[in-house]
Amino acid sequence: MTKIRLIETAFRDAHQSLLATRMRTRDMLPIAEEMDKVGFFSLECWGGATFDTCIRYLNEDPWDRLRSIKELVKKTPLQMLLRGQNLVGYKHYPDDVVRKFVEKSYENGVDVFRVFDALNDIRNMELSIKVAKEQGAHVQATLSYTTSPYHTIEKYVELAKELEALECDSLVIKDMAGLISPHDTYELVKTLKDETDLLINLHCHCTSGMTPMSYYAACQAGVDLLDTAISPLAWGASQPPTESVVAALKETPFDTELDLKLLNQIKKYFEEIREKYSGIIDPITERVDTDVLLYQIPGGMLSNFVSQLKEQNALDRYEDVLSEVPRVRKDLGYPPLVTPTSQIVGIQAVMNVLGGERYKNVSKEVKEYLKGFYGRPPAPVDPEVAHKIIGDEEPITCRPADFLEPELEKFRVKGEEMGIIKKEEDVLTFTLYPAVAPKFLRGETEEEPLAPPKSENVISTPTA
Amino acid sequence: MTKIRLIETAFRDAHQSLLATRMRTRDMLPIAEEMDKVGFFSLECWGGATFDTCIRYLNEDPWDRLRSIKELVKKTPLQMLLRGQNLVGYKHYPDDVVRKFVEKSYENGVDVFRVFDALNDIRNMELSIKVAKEQGAHVQATLSYTTSPYHTIEKYVELAKELEALECDSLVIKDMAGLISPHDTYELVKTLKDETDLLINLHCHCTSGMTPMSYYAACQAGVDLLDTAISPLAWGASQPPTESVVAALKETPFDTELDLKLLNQIKKYFEEIREKYSGIIDPITERVDTDVLLYQIPGGMLSNFVSQLKEQNALDRYEDVLSEVPRVRKDLGYPPLVTPTSQIVGIQAVMNVLGGERYKNVSKEVKEYLKGFYGRPPAPVDPEVAHKIIGDEEPITCRPADFLEPELEKFRVKGEEMGIIKKEEDVLTFTLYPAVAPKFLRGETEEEPLAPPKSENVISTPTA
Ligand SMILES: [Co+2]
Ligand SMILES: [Co+2]
Repeated sequence: MTKIRLIETAFRDAHQSLLATRMRTRDMLPIAEEMDKVGFFSLECWGGATFDTCIRYLNEDPWDRLRSIKELVKKTPLQMLLRGQNLVGYKHYPDDVVRKFVEKSYENGVDVFRVFDALNDIRNMELSIKVAKEQGAHVQATLSYTTSPYHTIEKYVELAKELEALECDSLVIKDMAGLISPHDTYELVKTLKDETDLLINLHCHCTSGMTPMSYYAACQAGVDLLDTAISPLAWGASQPPTESVVAALKETPFDTELDLKLLNQIKKYFEEIREKYSGIIDPITERVDTDVLLYQIPGGMLSNFVSQLKEQNALDRYEDVLSEVPRVRKDLGYPPLVTPTSQIVGIQAVMNVLGGERYKNVSKEVKEYLKGFYGRPPAPVDPEVAHKIIGDEEPITCRPADFLEPELEKFRVKGEEMGIIKKEEDVLTFTLYPAVAPKFLRGETEEEPLAPPKSENVISTPTA
Repeated sequence: MTKIRLIETAFRDAHQSLLATRMRTRDMLPIAEEMDKVGFFSLECWGGATFDTCIRYLNEDPWDRLRSIKELVKKTPLQMLLRGQNLVGYKHYPDDVVRKFVEKSYENGVDVFRVFDALNDIRNMELSIKVAKEQGAHVQATLSYTTSPYHTIEKYVELAKELEALECDSLVIKDMAGLISPHDTYELVKTLKDETDLLINLHCHCTSGMTPMSYYAACQAGVDLLDTAISPLAWGASQPPTESVVAALKETPFDTELDLKLLNQIKKYFEEIREKYSGIIDPITERVDTDVLLYQIPGGMLSNFVSQLKEQNALDRYEDVLSEVPRVRKDLGYPPLVTPTSQIVGIQAVMNVLGGERYKNVSKEVKEYLKGFYGRPPAPVDPEVAHKIIGDEEPITCRPADFLEPELEKFRVKGEEMGIIKKEEDVLTFTLYPAVAPKFLRGETEEEPLAPPKSENVISTPTA
């Protein structure tokens, strides 16, 4: 039996999942020292979509955010989500950019790097893992969780062992849509504990409503780490509530030994934050999405389908699209449905249904995917589909980033010419977001106004 | 290992907990036949606060509601919540009223009677149990769950055995505030299964956020029945989501074998209902209330304290009141904090704090309580406190309702004189709610208008 340790996601995944990643640094700092007292394994507070949102919508320097949190959080390690070779963007970057980005992230305060790749292709993760290890950081490798005939426990264990061989310190099961059932959680965690020496972490979103049960099953299977969010930023598309997990495990062999009273004070602060941001909460993200359970399609994709089909006056084809998704996914070798593969599969499914013939129209991204430029599909792609789309062209067999020329110095020179480089990190910001960064670095980005809180007409509730 | 069966609470507890019991019959009937197809153990649809709300706010005859649902739900048993000798009111009624009420409830369509008493005093439950058994109904007895040095597993088992001796068919653990942890759930359910032959049912509200984990632990301990609510009416102050529990248990020995596709169709209907009623949802009821975890005080009481103290300009005494509650509860012999004991304890705690001296001012209800008129306290009351309040007066030792004269015929005569009795059930309605019923029975009650749905300003959420 293991004492469980928690990773608090309030500053990253929780507000990315519920508040459109819009939480401002000035709303994090007043509570940061209290959060530091709790005794979390780590505070996730950087990476994912936060970098993009900072410079695009909030007129905030993401590097400043990281340093400001670091100044206040002296004991608890800070954690970031890194999309492997995609870093905090949506495409592969060349190795010189990856190296510099990881070095600078560490230097500015990241202690724990959670590294993932949408295809679980280790080649897309290994450079960032290596550089983070060189810095002396804790490196957490990721299994992007999905279900398919190819995603067996054996395959996950194989992947875990390869990641262990890269000297990762821990391994997270990343279940973006809350698809993992308590039973499957138990089996997977137990096997990973038996077959590796890694600390095992479970990261789920509550979308399907099964997650708290799966967390409990994970404890029974010997999990070491769980991702949770303080309750006002928990549930729905976010993680299970920190305080509830702490209370549920109290006085059991899994006891987190965290202080509920302190957590309750922190919770009161976040109740105000939630209220402040309530105008931007999409009610869909607050709810259990049982379509996820039925179609195994993440919630975000479903709402995209609705809006795409509405635009084309074809909402009557909704069910057809839903049943086309698993077929496209199978044709493409069962990629997990996360960014960017969720978009690739989703758009192609719509094209297949509305085009009248499957793969009559094919997106540029599906072509690139089939040519191997996203990495190695988890399972063989359908040969007929591949032939129809890329003919006799052979997919690349090397690592996609091998095709990319170094570009940091190019952006440095260009950025200096433009007069937008004031510190080393600005070169990275510019390289990652060449379209958005110049305006931001020139100080011309305006902070997006926050929608006013929702009004609340409330009548009292009778009891018993 | 048991196959789990579910009790769907959408038509009673779920809307009582989230929608202030305001769901109209006309919003239930269109989906009733679909609900009947699912294969629930029962549909909870009557009793609790629904009776009161129907005649007070909705201008609906509760008896008509019951019959209309019964006409459409032909296979699935209908269930009601009955507050023992309090029936669907807030005080003890004489035996003639209890007998007639249970008979008429059965006659109009109730198949399963869940009978509870706030003090777990069997004498307050036994007449309704007996009459329901006589009708041939399924009788479910209730353990009102709370924690105290006296509420040991042994005590609960003892109570369960006494209820079994009354020939109850099943036993529900009623955890109003979601206080039961997964560990305690396992121990309690396991022991009850071992020590009795009753079907065991777990009924929790999600307030503390631990409930889904406790449900899972209950399955592992051999629970037979779980209360759930279709997802748009689940979570928060309500029950865990039906579909999530179904999905989580799929392909395990606990499999409910219910059809997720059918549940998903039903869910879409209730999404619209939730939207329709969104104007009356108190956001507090939607959230995890971790104060429950800390103070073991149900959420409803906490918000009452805030408003009471605000009124008296004494919000700075909030923490004092919270810590006074457990002391008052101890003094009174650890009553579970449900209607009406939650109000009794809560008001006295406020009086003790603001009065400057404990029990300087004492409510009429505390006096009655100490004299035994609510039933037998679960544990001995503090003798000094009792002496200060009722002096040397001995509490009654008999059943409180033994003091009550029959009153049905009295109300019949009076009601007929007033010209408000059109059917036998009207006598009961008048007897239970003599202040409210005449206006309703005369057809002068107007349906309360429904607050408009909350407006929703939403911006799109980035993914991954
Ligand atoms: Co996540
Ligand atoms: Co209830």
